[in-house]
Amino acid sequence: MKNFLSIDNVTDLGGLVEQALQFKQNPFASKDLGKGKTLGLIFMNPSLRTRLSTQQAAYNLGMEVMVMNMNQDGWQLEFEDGSVMDGGTAEHIREAAAVISQYCDIIGIRTFAGLKHQQNDYQELVLNKFVTYAQVPVISLESATLHPLQSLADLVTIQEYQKSHRPKIVLSWAPHPRALPQAVANSFLQWASQWDCELVLTHPPGYELAEEFTEGVQVLNDQELAMKGADFVYTKNWSSYRQYGQVLTQDPSWMITPEKMDLTNNGQFMHCLPLRRNVVASDEVVDNSIVIPQSKNRLFAAQAVLSEILLDAQ
Amino acid sequence: MKNFLSIDNVTDLGGLVEQALQFKQNPFASKDLGKGKTLGLIFMNPSLRTRLSTQQAAYNLGMEVMVMNMNQDGWQLEFEDGSVMDGGTAEHIREAAAVISQYCDIIGIRTFAGLKHQQNDYQELVLNKFVTYAQVPVISLESATLHPLQSLADLVTIQEYQKSHRPKIVLSWAPHPRALPQAVANSFLQWASQWDCELVLTHPPGYELAEEFTEGVQVLNDQELAMKGADFVYTKNWSSYRQYGQVLTQDPSWMITPEKMDLTNNGQFMHCLPLRRNVVASDEVVDNSIVIPQSKNRLFAAQAVLSEILLDAQ
Amino acid sequence: MKNFLSIDNVTDLGGLVEQALQFKQNPFASKDLGKGKTLGLIFMNPSLRTRLSTQQAAYNLGMEVMVMNMNQDGWQLEFEDGSVMDGGTAEHIREAAAVISQYCDIIGIRTFAGLKHQQNDYQELVLNKFVTYAQVPVISLESATLHPLQSLADLVTIQEYQKSHRPKIVLSWAPHPRALPQAVANSFLQWASQWDCELVLTHPPGYELAEEFTEGVQVLNDQELAMKGADFVYTKNWSSYRQYGQVLTQDPSWMITPEKMDLTNNGQFMHCLPLRRNVVASDEVVDNSIVIPQSKNRLFAAQAVLSEILLDAQ
Repeated sequence: MKNFLSIDNVTDLGGLVEQALQFKQNPFASKDLGKGKTLGLIFMNPSLRTRLSTQQAAYNLGMEVMVMNMNQDGWQLEFEDGSVMDGGTAEHIREAAAVISQYCDIIGIRTFAGLKHQQNDYQELVLNKFVTYAQVPVISLESATLHPLQSLADLVTIQEYQKSHRPKIVLSWAPHPRALPQAVANSFLQWASQWDCELVLTHPPGYELAEEFTEGVQVLNDQELAMKGADFVYTKNWSSYRQYGQVLTQDPSWMITPEKMDLTNNGQFMHCLPLRRNVVASDEVVDNSIVIPQSKNRLFAAQAVLSEILLDAQ
Repeated sequence: MKNFLSIDNVTDLGGLVEQALQFKQNPFASKDLGKGKTLGLIFMNPSLRTRLSTQQAAYNLGMEVMVMNMNQDGWQLEFEDGSVMDGGTAEHIREAAAVISQYCDIIGIRTFAGLKHQQNDYQELVLNKFVTYAQVPVISLESATLHPLQSLADLVTIQEYQKSHRPKIVLSWAPHPRALPQAVANSFLQWASQWDCELVLTHPPGYELAEEFTEGVQVLNDQELAMKGADFVYTKNWSSYRQYGQVLTQDPSWMITPEKMDLTNNGQFMHCLPLRRNVVASDEVVDNSIVIPQSKNRLFAAQAVLSEILLDAQ
Repeated sequence: MKNFLSIDNVTDLGGLVEQALQFKQNPFASKDLGKGKTLGLIFMNPSLRTRLSTQQAAYNLGMEVMVMNMNQDGWQLEFEDGSVMDGGTAEHIREAAAVISQYCDIIGIRTFAGLKHQQNDYQELVLNKFVTYAQVPVISLESATLHPLQSLADLVTIQEYQKSHRPKIVLSWAPHPRALPQAVANSFLQWASQWDCELVLTHPPGYELAEEFTEGVQVLNDQELAMKGADFVYTKNWSSYRQYGQVLTQDPSWMITPEKMDLTNNGQFMHCLPLRRNVVASDEVVDNSIVIPQSKNRLFAAQAVLSEILLDAQ
């Protein structure tokens, strides 16, 4: 693995999940693999889980870590080629990416969806430019449209908790007061599609995701019907893809409740966090969920990815 | 020691002070104790001394450190149970604390007094919720009403500089333009009350501290009378506890001057810093004080606490 | 070397450049030199290259690193002696510098030019006060008027790329929309003056630098004449020194273009970065330049300086 930007960079999904679970058993199994190597973490957007779990994953592998909050500690970057930079941007992504990679062995970068121009976001302008000009492997710490480290942790969690070889997994939209990206939902569909499972997507009309992610996925607008017999109910809000970036409804009837969970096959509630209680899901659902063990697996997912990149760079 | 939130978590005060002094002699005496362990430092309020001294203390013990500025790098947390989170808060303390503790072995957290609702502050809402939901030991890096790492460093300093077995220690209020918490003063009284000393508190009328901290402490409104024969003059501003959070006076006659220090038994001036010169104390007093060695002891106080927690977790 | 604030702290320039180049060959040649030592990095101004390169340099020497963004993570400092601190500043540089040095073995600090009061900036008020009160060696990570780590990296780069023993080096002013300090230009002249080279400075009238830096340097207002036969064209914007801090012109005819580079002796374009493309220099010039390898040398310049300080402190 050179870069880790989406599931397309993964050649052996089962092996990667297995590697993460092995690190969970023995976090220090490869404690010298990253010795003398430095991971640079570049944040263009706030982060809690991703920041701490990736940093700890690097420490477990013996790496050093440098954190850079680009907008606080640095300055605004220019992404347009050929532009005359006499405005607000002080440095071009060409130089910024190349320079950062002079001082790190691997770079993790968090970019984000502007939610204004669908095409800009879905072309992953920022991430792809960064990868183009960086001279070392790049890991996505969430990009405009995908969140692959989260999705890997999700599958690791499903692997741990699934009671059958072909669980029913439902990805359900939930209400939220703010416009959020589609990244977690897109990415989860991409990864779960390669997992042996029955995959169902449910959301109100208007919240259809991009076709590239829903191909072959069963889509229902009836949440309760979708949840029937589910082994996992993965819940997430996203803003509209078609009416790009808009909040079409905050319909509270889409909140996950104990009553709805009763429709499942004693199913597990999952969420990537942060989660707005009593908006996305009720307290009781969250309190009886596996969201905390799920977050723990972020650490081992990151460690498996870093480890594979370090091994391939040797 | 599991958590370190106040002196109530200390079973052997003399031993803890002694441990700090031993680390001062030999900072690397336990350099492998924290190997493979990570300290997470969460700041909800700015910090200089606490941040750097605790980080260095962890390094001396072989630990890794991750720093998270919650309000800059993260988002606003919800502390109310049962609330419908459709407003400004993006994550509940239940998840935030539990998640952070998935990636760290010990968590240090700095919270702060809102100085609006006395009961909220004095119940230590934020710190206690964090401790409840964190799954690893928690160290207070100053909370709404206490600053135990500072107080431990203060006693270490007093132990170093005291010329008799029962020194006279005066805690004096001093003027300040802004409304400050009572945390340092409360905490100092709590710790000094367990030290073999004559403890005197002096402040203008209206600046009485909460009774739980002043029980058995001699209180005088006459600063000069209080300072007579003192071996240590610990100075600090705090806002009113009774008229909660208010600045009742900035009376400059309460500033510590060389003339006032002349009343003491060749006493030492102490302050936790940061200190506003020529407001809290005059230049001459500060320049001839032990505030810098006192700040150095923050390092060894933190190291003693971390070391005890690491030992007890083994 | 005790401190590293300017070339005045360097006794053997050739040896220091050579040391940097040796670290480039073998970054881990002194990997235990800094073991048990901590570098504190204090930023009063944003930084990308300096932050990451100095941090990585410290890691290569086995040091720990603590980063403090003073204005974000801390509070405003007071620099005036004797002032009554009842305004916006919460701590005096006397205490701040002394305290920080209790927890670090070496301190790197970035200060900046206010560009309002020439005398304040050129007296290096902040840096010098910090050095006075710090109790450990201090490295400038760029100050109001100098940027010695950059200049050392520049000479390392020139050493690598020069084709003759006495190259022609041109320092050219370039347009920029904002008022920038003179630090990089001042410092480059200071260091290049001690290098075996023909040194030419070119800028529009009104952009004269302080005489202490231009003594013995050939100065031309004709950029094309200056660039003729140059081996290196070091480009940088700065605001006026005489009409202090003002932008007198943004004349685009001073931008470096391929046509101008054709006048040189197949010369190399250099810039400290960040660089505004198509304002300071055109895309084609930047794309064919050595600015990225130049930035890489920041790492080894910092490592050479840290290494010399560590050796002298032994």
